[in-house]
Amino acid sequence: MSERYLALVLHAPADLRLDEREIGDIGPGQVLVRVGMGGICGSDLHYFHQGGFGAIRIKEPMALGHEVAGTVAAVAPDVTSVQVGDRVAVNPSLPCGHCRYCLEGLPNQCMDMRYFGSAMRTPHIQGAFRNRLVCEAVQCVKVAPGISMSLASLAEPFSVGLHAVSRAGSLLGKRVLVSGCGPIGAMVVAAARLHGAAEIIATDVVDEPLVVVKALGADTTINVAADPDWVQRYAADKGQIDVMIECSGNERALRNGLETLRPRGVVVQLGLGGDVSVPQNVIVAKELLMMGSFRFHAEFALAVQLINDGRVDLSPVITRSFGMHQAVEAFELASDRKRAMKVLIDFGIEA
Amino acid sequence: MSERYLALVLHAPADLRLDEREIGDIGPGQVLVRVGMGGICGSDLHYFHQGGFGAIRIKEPMALGHEVAGTVAAVAPDVTSVQVGDRVAVNPSLPCGHCRYCLEGLPNQCMDMRYFGSAMRTPHIQGAFRNRLVCEAVQCVKVAPGISMSLASLAEPFSVGLHAVSRAGSLLGKRVLVSGCGPIGAMVVAAARLHGAAEIIATDVVDEPLVVVKALGADTTINVAADPDWVQRYAADKGQIDVMIECSGNERALRNGLETLRPRGVVVQLGLGGDVSVPQNVIVAKELLMMGSFRFHAEFALAVQLINDGRVDLSPVITRSFGMHQAVEAFELASDRKRAMKVLIDFGIEA
Amino acid sequence: MSERYLALVLHAPADLRLDEREIGDIGPGQVLVRVGMGGICGSDLHYFHQGGFGAIRIKEPMALGHEVAGTVAAVAPDVTSVQVGDRVAVNPSLPCGHCRYCLEGLPNQCMDMRYFGSAMRTPHIQGAFRNRLVCEAVQCVKVAPGISMSLASLAEPFSVGLHAVSRAGSLLGKRVLVSGCGPIGAMVVAAARLHGAAEIIATDVVDEPLVVVKALGADTTINVAADPDWVQRYAADKGQIDVMIECSGNERALRNGLETLRPRGVVVQLGLGGDVSVPQNVIVAKELLMMGSFRFHAEFALAVQLINDGRVDLSPVITRSFGMHQAVEAFELASDRKRAMKVLIDFGIEA
Amino acid sequence: MSERYLALVLHAPADLRLDEREIGDIGPGQVLVRVGMGGICGSDLHYFHQGGFGAIRIKEPMALGHEVAGTVAAVAPDVTSVQVGDRVAVNPSLPCGHCRYCLEGLPNQCMDMRYFGSAMRTPHIQGAFRNRLVCEAVQCVKVAPGISMSLASLAEPFSVGLHAVSRAGSLLGKRVLVSGCGPIGAMVVAAARLHGAAEIIATDVVDEPLVVVKALGADTTINVAADPDWVQRYAADKGQIDVMIECSGNERALRNGLETLRPRGVVVQLGLGGDVSVPQNVIVAKELLMMGSFRFHAEFALAVQLINDGRVDLSPVITRSFGMHQAVEAFELASDRKRAMKVLIDFGIEA
Repeated sequence: MSERYLALVLHAPADLRLDEREIGDIGPGQVLVRVGMGGICGSDLHYFHQGGFGAIRIKEPMALGHEVAGTVAAVAPDVTSVQVGDRVAVNPSLPCGHCRYCLEGLPNQCMDMRYFGSAMRTPHIQGAFRNRLVCEAVQCVKVAPGISMSLASLAEPFSVGLHAVSRAGSLLGKRVLVSGCGPIGAMVVAAARLHGAAEIIATDVVDEPLVVVKALGADTTINVAADPDWVQRYAADKGQIDVMIECSGNERALRNGLETLRPRGVVVQLGLGGDVSVPQNVIVAKELLMMGSFRFHAEFALAVQLINDGRVDLSPVITRSFGMHQAVEAFELASDRKRAMKVLIDFGIEA
Repeated sequence: MSERYLALVLHAPADLRLDEREIGDIGPGQVLVRVGMGGICGSDLHYFHQGGFGAIRIKEPMALGHEVAGTVAAVAPDVTSVQVGDRVAVNPSLPCGHCRYCLEGLPNQCMDMRYFGSAMRTPHIQGAFRNRLVCEAVQCVKVAPGISMSLASLAEPFSVGLHAVSRAGSLLGKRVLVSGCGPIGAMVVAAARLHGAAEIIATDVVDEPLVVVKALGADTTINVAADPDWVQRYAADKGQIDVMIECSGNERALRNGLETLRPRGVVVQLGLGGDVSVPQNVIVAKELLMMGSFRFHAEFALAVQLINDGRVDLSPVITRSFGMHQAVEAFELASDRKRAMKVLIDFGIEA
Repeated sequence: MSERYLALVLHAPADLRLDEREIGDIGPGQVLVRVGMGGICGSDLHYFHQGGFGAIRIKEPMALGHEVAGTVAAVAPDVTSVQVGDRVAVNPSLPCGHCRYCLEGLPNQCMDMRYFGSAMRTPHIQGAFRNRLVCEAVQCVKVAPGISMSLASLAEPFSVGLHAVSRAGSLLGKRVLVSGCGPIGAMVVAAARLHGAAEIIATDVVDEPLVVVKALGADTTINVAADPDWVQRYAADKGQIDVMIECSGNERALRNGLETLRPRGVVVQLGLGGDVSVPQNVIVAKELLMMGSFRFHAEFALAVQLINDGRVDLSPVITRSFGMHQAVEAFELASDRKRAMKVLIDFGIEA
Repeated sequence: MSERYLALVLHAPADLRLDEREIGDIGPGQVLVRVGMGGICGSDLHYFHQGGFGAIRIKEPMALGHEVAGTVAAVAPDVTSVQVGDRVAVNPSLPCGHCRYCLEGLPNQCMDMRYFGSAMRTPHIQGAFRNRLVCEAVQCVKVAPGISMSLASLAEPFSVGLHAVSRAGSLLGKRVLVSGCGPIGAMVVAAARLHGAAEIIATDVVDEPLVVVKALGADTTINVAADPDWVQRYAADKGQIDVMIECSGNERALRNGLETLRPRGVVVQLGLGGDVSVPQNVIVAKELLMMGSFRFHAEFALAVQLINDGRVDLSPVITRSFGMHQAVEAFELASDRKRAMKVLIDFGIEA
């Protein structure tokens, strides 16, 4: 197959180009997807601005992006799960299926994970911000008629939110604190609401995202920069919060949350903040439970199902979309928390 | 009742006196215990040396001690659970039994806890380092014939170890790392061995305690000061340790341990180290589970049962005992990790 | 206080009378409630028709009823949690607060439980089907303005459904089978939907209740009498159902459900069916998990909160209400599954 | 390879022959084991006496046996985990590694399981009672010097016991009832003792096995046929037993056990008894938890490790061994619960 495609490739920090590449063959079990829409994630922004995060840095040109949906344009002869014309959300994660962790039911911990647009291994796994994508058929989950490509592209971040909520266990009767209301925090609010949290309190340091999470189901929103005494309102009797889902990666957000957690309270840590200082005596004395949440697995199909069934409406998180050729503008808007929540790139506009 | 007793009372840091006090009445449900032996705990040492720890400071003279065993000398008329002459280990914790946490089955989180020798509330709860002690009958658990008062006085720290192990859940097939092998770490090793850990690795920065924990059941002991590369031996495939029980309160011990933990590995935090810096990205990416463990409750009766039945031999932790009048000497020895593990005070030697 | 009230008292099977009794004193911590509405429960019907169930039989006249809501008419001087005029749902269960199970956080297992309208102990605990009720203030949970007494009276059966769902743990991504769609099954469907079940399949042997549970959120309803092959549709790959909540107490319903459960699948048993035959080899080979669910505790306040907040609309279960004097007619209608789901008695109509 | 081996092949009920067969090739990843010792299991006895159990019947000649240990005699060129001369216990289970359940970490639920000596699929999986066995290298776990082949052959039934204990969760502080003290019940006692059960009560209807389980760590043994009032001793306060591990498959044993279980008590069902009648009202009212336990997986390596390390001494279960040519005699002895616990066949005696 000699067709070519266009990809948003990062060559160096802030050097994002629309490169033309060759599509290559569609191997057994694979499909060709005409990408419709792609969402810009925080990690894409880290690559774009700093070339990576922590020890992970781009060492070679890498197409960005891992939140995409599109239409199946071709399938290998052995593929039966999808067919040409199907509209699909694409799961960016492809665990190996035979390492120790895959066989323990922890594919998100796979030791040979291939994840779109990730520089965790070299050669990097090229991203999905492109107008044509060859991927495994098992990565494709069908999108229902009437669901836009924009909503479908949210399946990936919503999966992250669902996984975090699943880590916390049942939310029945629980008062849940979500700290940090960027796109991931917003997805966590939606996932917690859908899974029965008795009350959801969402915090941030700017007002704009709080409006969005209110629309997604938060009962109470607090701008903690403007209302520094909020901790006291939830600190009585050792703490009034049952579950905290920490999405900011901010040390102060975590520490404040620990003050509000009741004994045996649970912190699900999603935000990635490098080294943070925590009060060991508080964790010990209240016997708190702090657990990391990393990506997702089975939750991807669930995310699509919930979107398909209309059981969740994630449209409030969508700020706007840009054409492929305006990608840099899209990245810049996405970097401004006061103006943007989820910014999309439309790969379906063939210029 | 006009009898008097002698108590080891801390008046100020390093000012520990043998004061005479009046015994007072034995109220309904109460008993008078002739204290036999008492063990010096790390918190006693903190009071002795610094007058407390963190925000907790002695504000008035306070008898120290909470690890004691003795013989019942008198009982209130309504008491039936023990009788005069019974040898008992005394549970230093007395939860209120009707607060929110008591009614949730979390009496160690009681909002009105009375714990011997604690300055957490004022007036302080006077300690049990004395030759006569009036306490509730429900605090007394009978010690089997043939069990020495020394061993019986270990029921309290052993309870702490058992509670930490219970927090970790089943240890079946688990490789367990115990960091920090003071008296509590030693008790954790004994408790983990008794509850079926497949392999126990114990670490410390001095050699002497490692000899003791070996005797209590550690399979491997590592002086991490002398063997800085130990982490690499357990770091393969994202980590080789299933459960870490952190007893040192030391930041570096915790951080090193996190490197050795496998995905979804568990840290039970027992050591109290103030603020510590933890790598949020590691907790998130490996989805680690970190939980505090505070004191104990049902484990006290279990500790006595296991000691009574000879299912555990805790004698290796006992360094030596001193008479009441040598208490300062005892506290000084107990402060030297190279020479002492558990130092006891013999309150039964009537001078 | 010399006031008198009217109560629906069962003297013998089918001998239900409206008796006049004396209200008595309002003791410390107590309130007088002017009962508004009361729902007839399956256990009320068992008392009415057979004088009890299993080994539990009425041995003396007993007022029936435990699902009531009303208005506070008087309070003891020490009561602050509610005041005269408050509209409240009344929790029929009053655990002792100091037995072994209460102190373990299992008050529904209290060894000295007082539950309205129960012949489990003698003297029986008189029921709440009356126009005036003295109860503890802690049993009263405030109902929001705009919530009818009818809806408020559903707090009790809804609590039973919430407790069953809480026993199952998180329903995130789970396919849930609810067998038996009487009032309790209907409440389970509502509770499971609220707590995020990915898919709810509800079964019964008559059509009428299936219409109701569809309105409460069931995705699929099956009349298993009319569609005996339904099991095969969910039996592939050892079973396709994650969680079964068995509300019928019917042996065949349970056995069929076991065929559809996946390995490690969960059965929450709510229905009370006496001795039932189960296939031990299926339970063993698929490592199924079967657990009982009995009444509720913390879920009562949650039920009222969810009703108050409008997060659940339970009105589809209400068939109709009758005046106190038509109680026998109400009981007869309630006994007919084809015509009735939840039948209410209006105690507020002062004749 | 033209070598031949001898296998104990069942042609029909009670028709057990020593057949000669061809060894065949050693494929990639495989090894040839010179079988030393093999233990007769209850399922072997079922095949021998009735030709199977439940719906599972032999439809073609099948070599029996799945509890074997031996010495590696040859290895495929690509095998590195074991070498010629290694003494190994052989895991009889070979899950496919890529079905839904294998990828969920439940290989014992594999949909394409190959298990030695099982007629669950046709062609049957031939058993390991033979003097030469070609198997996968991954099925071989090295046995320590000094551990006899007899003890090593117990790794499989011990794995079953360990898996059952792992299903129950932590046994810390738990009073455990083991009903049915055949070889599997005995292994459960040993596993529960090793994993910290506070107290183990073992029951049977004959005395002889109770002597064995006492040697393996049971605190109390009860011949329930001779002591029918035993249930009353454990029934106070709704029940005194925390965990029951049911190994008899007997309905009465299960029902009696349910009477002794405390609220929220746990039953792990191991015994396979067909349809049994259970009191649904008891399961509901005490909110009991009943779960199946089927075979094992990770526990096999753990079993060998614990045997190797001398942390458990399983020798009390061994009754005696017979030569291959005395197999029928061995099966007959193994069928007599009064005379035999575990009967072994020595495949190493080359006649």
